[in-house]
This record gives sequence, C-alpha cells and structure tokens, in this order.
Amino acid sequence: MSEDERLPQPATADIDLVTLLHALGDPVRMTLLLSYADGREHSCGPRDLGLDHLHKSTVSHHMRVLREAGVTTTRVAGRNRFVSLRRTDLDARFPGLLDALLAAATATPLRRKAVGP
Amino acid sequence: MSEDERLPQPATADIDLVTLLHALGDPVRMTLLLSYADGREHSCGPRDLGLDHLHKSTVSHHMRVLREAGVTTTRVAGRNRFVSLRRTDLDARFPGLLDALLAAATATPLRRKAVGP
Repeated sequence: MSEDERLPQPATADIDLVTLLHALGDPVRMTLLLSYADGREHSCGPRDLGLDHLHKSTVSHHMRVLREAGVTTTRVAGRNRFVSLRRTDLDARFPGLLDALLAAATATPLRRKAVGP
Repeated sequence: MSEDERLPQPATADIDLVTLLHALGDPVRMTLLLSYADGREHSCGPRDLGLDHLHKSTVSHHMRVLREAGVTTTRVAGRNRFVSLRRTDLDARFPGLLDALLAAATATPLRRKAVGP
C-alpha cells in the first residue's frame, strides 16, 4: 500500500499529547474512538458510525480532527475512504495511554458535552 | 476541614472523561497538571506556577476549568487559595489514566497549542 493512498497524518513521533487530548475531549470524537477501538476499518458514513443524527460535514470535521491528531489513519480507495485506529502507533508513542482511555470510556457513560475554549 | 473551605468541584463519581480530556487538551492546563503532579498544594499566583507570561485572569480561567473538570481541588484559607491534584479521586474514577497521562506528558515535550473547536 503506497503512502499516496493515505490522507495526511502526523508521523508517530510527531503525535502530540495535548493535541491528542484536545481531539478526544469531545463527545462525538470519543464516540468515534470507541467505534474504531475494534481495530477494523470503518467507512465514513454517519449511519455506519451510529451518528446519523449529525450532518455528514460535521462527522467529516470530527474525523479530520482525529486524523490530524494522530488518532486515526484514513485509507483512500477510489471514491471510498476507510478509517481505522492507529493503535500500534499510539501504543508506541504513549505506552498505556490508549488502553487507559478506552477502559475509562467503556467503564463510564459519556455524558457531558465539553464546553468553553 | 469543612466543605465550605473548598471551591465547588464535582464529586468523584461525577468526573466525566470527555470533560477531563477537554480540560487537559490545552498546553497551559497540561503545564499546570505537571506542576500539581508533585501532590503538594500550590498557590494561585502565575509566578509561582511558572506562568508569569500569562495574565492572572487567564491563569484563573485555566485553574477553574481544571477544578470544574475534577482534576484539582481548591482550598480557601482566608484570602488565599491553594490548589492540589485530586490524585486519589482520579485514580478511583479512572484507574491507570492519570499515571498514563503523566508518563506521556513527562516523556514528550509539550509543543503544539490545541486549535479548532
């Protein structure tokens, strides 16, 4: 698979902790993370992601934030795009963090919408 | 120490993961977390926190975000306020998360300012 088939993303060594936390400090993006936690590739349709109450452009925005933060990788295949979690990269960059985040997210309900700057 | 001597903060069971990540997804607040990681009480002065390039009201805002997210507790003693990390509460609420965050933050330089909504 060539590099050209991926949308732009930071190298593993360039994944920044604060940017990562900012990306995950949003209920929609945390919901996406939980979807991607299965390790599979996911299509980008809001319906496929259980987010059909959101506009497609809103979902696209959230997916871009996750990709640019280094959380996900997006493979382009013709007109389709497939998103998956960068688990190996994240585990290498921040050992234990992803597991702790996923454990916290699955142990507690996602409730409040993050507010403020 | 009575409840009246603390500024308002969420109960441990009400600490929300997304709100917590949003709070820490900011370079100033991550810097504050690293200061508080020593477990001691800290005064609120920007100079004491190594943040004397920021206005006092800006630092106060960031400290409020951390407190309202459940990251810190603020003890009021007369005209003074002392801030410390809620390590026991955070460890109880999200086991392993704080340690993973602090390990990630100390292993990598804090670089980018989080941007976007």
